[in-house]
Amino acid sequence: MEHFLNKMLEKNRAKCQFGDVADYIPGLDRADKNNLGLCIMRTDGTVQRVGDYDVKFTIQSVSKPVTLMLAILDNGVDHVFSKVGMEPTGDAFNSIKKLETCDTHKPFNPMINAGAIATTALVKGRDAQDKFRRLLEFFRKICENDTLDIDEEIYRGEKETGNKNRAMGYFMKGEGYIDGDLEDALDVYFKQCSILVTAEDMARLGLFLARGGILSNGERVVSEHVAKIAKTLMVTCGMYDGSGEFALMVGVPSKSGVGGGICSVVPGRMGVGIFGPSLDKKGNSIGGYSLLKDLSQELSLSIF
Amino acid sequence: MEHFLNKMLEKNRAKCQFGDVADYIPGLDRADKNNLGLCIMRTDGTVQRVGDYDVKFTIQSVSKPVTLMLAILDNGVDHVFSKVGMEPTGDAFNSIKKLETCDTHKPFNPMINAGAIATTALVKGRDAQDKFRRLLEFFRKICENDTLDIDEEIYRGEKETGNKNRAMGYFMKGEGYIDGDLEDALDVYFKQCSILVTAEDMARLGLFLARGGILSNGERVVSEHVAKIAKTLMVTCGMYDGSGEFALMVGVPSKSGVGGGICSVVPGRMGVGIFGPSLDKKGNSIGGYSLLKDLSQELSLSIF
Amino acid sequence: MEHFLNKMLEKNRAKCQFGDVADYIPGLDRADKNNLGLCIMRTDGTVQRVGDYDVKFTIQSVSKPVTLMLAILDNGVDHVFSKVGMEPTGDAFNSIKKLETCDTHKPFNPMINAGAIATTALVKGRDAQDKFRRLLEFFRKICENDTLDIDEEIYRGEKETGNKNRAMGYFMKGEGYIDGDLEDALDVYFKQCSILVTAEDMARLGLFLARGGILSNGERVVSEHVAKIAKTLMVTCGMYDGSGEFALMVGVPSKSGVGGGICSVVPGRMGVGIFGPSLDKKGNSIGGYSLLKDLSQELSLSIF
Amino acid sequence: MEHFLNKMLEKNRAKCQFGDVADYIPGLDRADKNNLGLCIMRTDGTVQRVGDYDVKFTIQSVSKPVTLMLAILDNGVDHVFSKVGMEPTGDAFNSIKKLETCDTHKPFNPMINAGAIATTALVKGRDAQDKFRRLLEFFRKICENDTLDIDEEIYRGEKETGNKNRAMGYFMKGEGYIDGDLEDALDVYFKQCSILVTAEDMARLGLFLARGGILSNGERVVSEHVAKIAKTLMVTCGMYDGSGEFALMVGVPSKSGVGGGICSVVPGRMGVGIFGPSLDKKGNSIGGYSLLKDLSQELSLSIF
Repeated sequence: MEHFLNKMLEKNRAKCQFGDVADYIPGLDRADKNNLGLCIMRTDGTVQRVGDYDVKFTIQSVSKPVTLMLAILDNGVDHVFSKVGMEPTGDAFNSIKKLETCDTHKPFNPMINAGAIATTALVKGRDAQDKFRRLLEFFRKICENDTLDIDEEIYRGEKETGNKNRAMGYFMKGEGYIDGDLEDALDVYFKQCSILVTAEDMARLGLFLARGGILSNGERVVSEHVAKIAKTLMVTCGMYDGSGEFALMVGVPSKSGVGGGICSVVPGRMGVGIFGPSLDKKGNSIGGYSLLKDLSQELSLSIF
Repeated sequence: MEHFLNKMLEKNRAKCQFGDVADYIPGLDRADKNNLGLCIMRTDGTVQRVGDYDVKFTIQSVSKPVTLMLAILDNGVDHVFSKVGMEPTGDAFNSIKKLETCDTHKPFNPMINAGAIATTALVKGRDAQDKFRRLLEFFRKICENDTLDIDEEIYRGEKETGNKNRAMGYFMKGEGYIDGDLEDALDVYFKQCSILVTAEDMARLGLFLARGGILSNGERVVSEHVAKIAKTLMVTCGMYDGSGEFALMVGVPSKSGVGGGICSVVPGRMGVGIFGPSLDKKGNSIGGYSLLKDLSQELSLSIF
Repeated sequence: MEHFLNKMLEKNRAKCQFGDVADYIPGLDRADKNNLGLCIMRTDGTVQRVGDYDVKFTIQSVSKPVTLMLAILDNGVDHVFSKVGMEPTGDAFNSIKKLETCDTHKPFNPMINAGAIATTALVKGRDAQDKFRRLLEFFRKICENDTLDIDEEIYRGEKETGNKNRAMGYFMKGEGYIDGDLEDALDVYFKQCSILVTAEDMARLGLFLARGGILSNGERVVSEHVAKIAKTLMVTCGMYDGSGEFALMVGVPSKSGVGGGICSVVPGRMGVGIFGPSLDKKGNSIGGYSLLKDLSQELSLSIF
Repeated sequence: MEHFLNKMLEKNRAKCQFGDVADYIPGLDRADKNNLGLCIMRTDGTVQRVGDYDVKFTIQSVSKPVTLMLAILDNGVDHVFSKVGMEPTGDAFNSIKKLETCDTHKPFNPMINAGAIATTALVKGRDAQDKFRRLLEFFRKICENDTLDIDEEIYRGEKETGNKNRAMGYFMKGEGYIDGDLEDALDVYFKQCSILVTAEDMARLGLFLARGGILSNGERVVSEHVAKIAKTLMVTCGMYDGSGEFALMVGVPSKSGVGGGICSVVPGRMGVGIFGPSLDKKGNSIGGYSLLKDLSQELSLSIF
């Protein structure tokens, strides 16, 4: 199996040259665009790791489904979805125009920046620090990795260059979709984007969802229903404005980030973690996408 | 089972009063808003029919995945998706603005009007009549119902009031996404929207997709891959701009139409046909949606 | 004076190389991008002609204020402005999105394509031919040139490639802003865009408006109020989505066309006609714009 | 004359009931919707005052052309227009979408909120306090009223509820159109909106522009060119997204504010100040607009 995965990985590594490493946040551009790593964790306990599976990168948007789950635990499903919608947008992940042009002015879903800022604002805590502490703890628990922490340089970069996220935040605040202090919420948002992970952590997160919200020690952290919400939104909105094509080509709930990570979930079977910082135009790992396409075909992963 | 389904149907029939029958096409408004019908056809051959399962209505947008499949049979996957995209839009099904504002000016997916006009234009035939003859034959085959035909009054109504569809058609023609005669394509499009069906026909269509493209006599009509394309697009874009919520609430590939029909597919298990002409604001059957939500929970239908 | 104008013209002819001749309509691209012509007609009867003032070109959008005036004569101010608005759009002249996104779905003003199609549809006549005959007669009268006629090749090109105009037409028909036969209205629209004129004709049109609606023989053709409507809309919307800058830089009511023509009006003083087919990115004559800027400064033409 | 003006004012006061006082900023809703005041100051020194000409209100958007002039004095025309455009938008004054959808992401003009925040950010000063001190001094000079000052309650209200302005500010900062501290710029912006004025102050400002940038003591404060820039932008963009209609109906450079003020300029002849806090749907004084329409007709004020 490892040999077979290695072959597929090397074949797809060649695609990395056709993409580019994200550079709009200082620090992100340090990544090596030829990196490609894969980790598969099955519900039967077997694990495969190939390529650059242990290179650290910032989680970026892959954090969004996790934060959504904590927001739901803290507030309930109904309250969360009174502040954020459930619909794909057809626009780029950092687009602001639909906040103005749609009837409700509500962020469309928790997988785009606007919606994720809204869910982050719902995480409970005394202050920004306490909120992030709780959120980081939740990430550590679900990824079963107590050493997870943020990359300080990238966090500062996010914060300094995050003016469009700030713009969305204030727009939503003006429309009543953000309660409490916005700068606090943005600070927590920037921090969670900056959590350092590996493809292995991503696979663990995928496995958690593949098991419907249960850790490898059998502990249930979120209900099956909440895990299903996360997985469903990953299908319809998880791969930016390329989610529709991805559903056709790969067909498994997945979330990508501009750090190059992808977390994929094959319900009942496995979690798949990818690292490949060379991105296509929509912000998805170009080698990772292609590798998942091959994997999906070879291992019949599509849920459709 | 029939008793149980009847109870659920009657419970949800009460919701029909909160919606409205479509009236923008002359003829559509003849429907009785309290109608609600359900038909379930399982891969094991069992069939259940309750409520107004045998009332005829026009198929409207539920035709879209069928036309897509014939367009693919006629032209191949690659050619079809060079003329239409695969992404959800976040806009109403008859919206034109994204054709202008997106980079490629390509219709976003085959489940909205613009994209469906583009796929209809791809159906082969000597002329409009021949094209529609082939399309109708294809519908009859897949729905296993040789008596399917159009409602002449509604077809004429569609044609007379179809100026926005015409607008989208000409815009796409100007951008090179429609080859051949546009008025012919629109004529075929209006005709296929006007095909009269029942909830039973919808269930048969769902069953066909649930079996991956195979008729009840075992004949394969489209490949598993093509059936998967249809099902995937039904998940991401099948319920208009309410597809995301529907995926969370029901979680099965489905396509609705403003005639009140819904075709749902539970892969490997069953096809579900709904008729309920009272619509919610997004154009989905209000009683049908609610009934599917109950069914999904009771029978554990969600694919996520 | 002629010497001074010649010097200014030659200075600005150098700018023509930085633009491009329109090529989206077959036939338009035959123009010589180095052509630049100017004609000034004063209310005191003096006339100056320099450069390529006698080269023929199609009037294109410069026809829009003329058609507006005939539509008003035929229908009255109130009826015309129930079908078209008075506001600048900030979008390109051939953009369709505002028709959908604005509350009323009404074309914004008569100087963009959508609005001009709506005003053309208001010109009275038994059929398309009769409507265009009346319109051409009106152009001939106002430009005081009985030989005006259309360029058949460009008319056919407009008609064949006019799919976006057709799209706007059908959208407006769907919204009730076009009564009567749309294809007829489009045919008249394409024909009036194809009328062949020279810079001298443009100056004559400008002079007519500068005199508040009066021909050189003293005959009043439209009321002062109607002439004022045309001039005002030329200021706010006449130079495509560059109208605001043009008002600052030149400051006189003007209308440009992608054939390279500009008609400028200095109320009470003069009409200015320009021909310069090399266009800037917004569709305005690049040499003509620059020449008008110089003229405005040298002769203190700005109305502000 | 006073008698005639009084008659016109009382006739138009009846229209005030059809509008509404702005209430989105706490404090604004204290205004009496039946108030209507007019002050006319001619270049020959004569002054007429009728109705509620001495009632104080906050200047709101009427401040925008003044701030533009100081920004130009501080930075030069070219630098200012590298940060803000010159084009009307066709959208509401507080709309954000064009910042994202236009190619340059530059605010369209200095008369809408986004553009005015950009020009405010260009006013020089050591810090926010110093910037506003300089700006207030400039307002006092041009309005020839040393007692001008802000309404503290409304300033605080603007600041507390100004989330959409903040959103626009951060969006522009992200695109590089705001240098320096944004919160400082917003603070100055909110303060200048809160300056208390009367119709008489508005007339004085109009007179200043009517004289091409000269005070009543003959002192030139801005060049004729800069005054012309302000007047031109007032024509194309001064009355929100009703500027086009206003140009047709009234035809003089004007700027309105949601406090109910309008400043109108009849070049070479007079400044007109209006106060009428009952607003139409676009945010313009409903009685003031109507009164100006009558005045324009009776006194032949239109510049077109």
